[in-house]
Amino acid sequence: MKVGIIGLGLIGGSIAVDLRRRGHAHEILGVETDQVNAAAALKIGLVDKVTDLDECLSESDMVVLAVPVGAAVRLLPRILDSFDAAGSAEKIVIDVCSTKEHLARCVRYHPCRRQYVATHPMAGTEYSGPWAAMSGLFDGHACIICDAEESAPNAVRRVEELYDVLNMRMIYMSSSSHDVHAAYVSHISHVSSFALALTVLDKEKDEKHIFDLASGGFSSTVRLAKSSSEMWTPILSQNRENVLHVMDTYIEKMNAFRQAIADGDEDAVRGLIEEANRIRRIIR
Amino acid sequence: MKVGIIGLGLIGGSIAVDLRRRGHAHEILGVETDQVNAAAALKIGLVDKVTDLDECLSESDMVVLAVPVGAAVRLLPRILDSFDAAGSAEKIVIDVCSTKEHLARCVRYHPCRRQYVATHPMAGTEYSGPWAAMSGLFDGHACIICDAEESAPNAVRRVEELYDVLNMRMIYMSSSSHDVHAAYVSHISHVSSFALALTVLDKEKDEKHIFDLASGGFSSTVRLAKSSSEMWTPILSQNRENVLHVMDTYIEKMNAFRQAIADGDEDAVRGLIEEANRIRRIIR
Repeated sequence: MKVGIIGLGLIGGSIAVDLRRRGHAHEILGVETDQVNAAAALKIGLVDKVTDLDECLSESDMVVLAVPVGAAVRLLPRILDSFDAAGSAEKIVIDVCSTKEHLARCVRYHPCRRQYVATHPMAGTEYSGPWAAMSGLFDGHACIICDAEESAPNAVRRVEELYDVLNMRMIYMSSSSHDVHAAYVSHISHVSSFALALTVLDKEKDEKHIFDLASGGFSSTVRLAKSSSEMWTPILSQNRENVLHVMDTYIEKMNAFRQAIADGDEDAVRGLIEEANRIRRIIR
Repeated sequence: MKVGIIGLGLIGGSIAVDLRRRGHAHEILGVETDQVNAAAALKIGLVDKVTDLDECLSESDMVVLAVPVGAAVRLLPRILDSFDAAGSAEKIVIDVCSTKEHLARCVRYHPCRRQYVATHPMAGTEYSGPWAAMSGLFDGHACIICDAEESAPNAVRRVEELYDVLNMRMIYMSSSSHDVHAAYVSHISHVSSFALALTVLDKEKDEKHIFDLASGGFSSTVRLAKSSSEMWTPILSQNRENVLHVMDTYIEKMNAFRQAIADGDEDAVRGLIEEANRIRRIIR
């Protein structure tokens, strides 16, 4: 299969690595507007060729749209237009974005909607760019397929095959459900980590103290605060209502914690910590 | 050297493992009030013998007080009293607690104060109990020695030798500075992680969704929320003023983030994320 990957960053690049290594793609074309990233992706060997968008769309059997969700909203309709214009009924496009509902709305009535499969492979690191791409990134993680009934069954099957190669377990839900649950679990984690970094950088003026006092605990809690604004600004914007809703709950919990500490109420503090400890049962 | 370890949990147990393995202690006595933990520590081989407090204090050259800080406040004066009563001017006691000022105040005027060295080895995991003990836990991390001028130079030197064996780099500060910086970096990380767990458990009623949607990002951010209430309730209580102060800043940052998202102000959101990204320079 010839695969075209638009956006040669962490996710696009890591998909390329394993589709090739595991024999699923015999040729991989890449599209990348950043010239440094494009040259690096070619040099590392993530892709066989860097092309322009039109060449990529006309030559690929399967197109993976792996750009930040702001750009995906602009590109996805254009990709489906090109399928339509070329009468390419067999071509498939998937996106890998972290918010789904806005994207779904953009192409809802497109004549080639059934050639698009909305997916969210739930894996990543806090790094970005083609040099962050790695083999095995997706192994064992969940991949959410959204609104599968809006896509052609054959297209869904081929996309499931692709994610099988990446060793992912498939979960199916609507794009609106996806966005609610993504806000509740993933997006709030990023926001709380950004807030932690802002707090520590504000209070601890001497960076040497942060470095010295950063045990493994701080490092892991603040890790997501290294995530790029290019990716996260449009996610938080497109999933605004759900994100605000979960942020309000977070602020409530933080205030309850603050009150218990301020009151010197050790029983209340202990109660809150023990309630939080319930996460042990779920996350090993 | 004969070492007595009071509290055979993660920290006490991990100290025992490496002091023995690296030849620094020829005999290790343990004191542990929890009978299950005591039996386990003996069976795993963390200690040669589990004794009562009096036997441990009379037999050990160096006593490591590795209990939650609430218990440490009660035990430390008693340990120094026993040194005084026995006229054991060569014995040394260290604590390994995460808050320091309250403990320092408790023994400030004790006649044997100079035989006590206040230390905080900045390493740990979210697990507890003797089965969580591991070799190499401290390697490469910082160990803070507080109020070194209040301890006998010879005692400080022997404690530095012990932490050298554990491969730690020493940092020196007052106990009050320690508590400020620990709140600013470590304690707020725990609080934000507890609040994240409380939020996700509240919003996401279906635990299967949490499990499915928990990518590595959520797992690392929520990791500290597994930390025990037995350890963290007294820390947050004893370091109350500093913790409240940094929590207020955290809540401010979270509210600023919330406002930027609510306003749909993408430039402001991007600005906050890029500011948070400065943590990349410090934490690799």
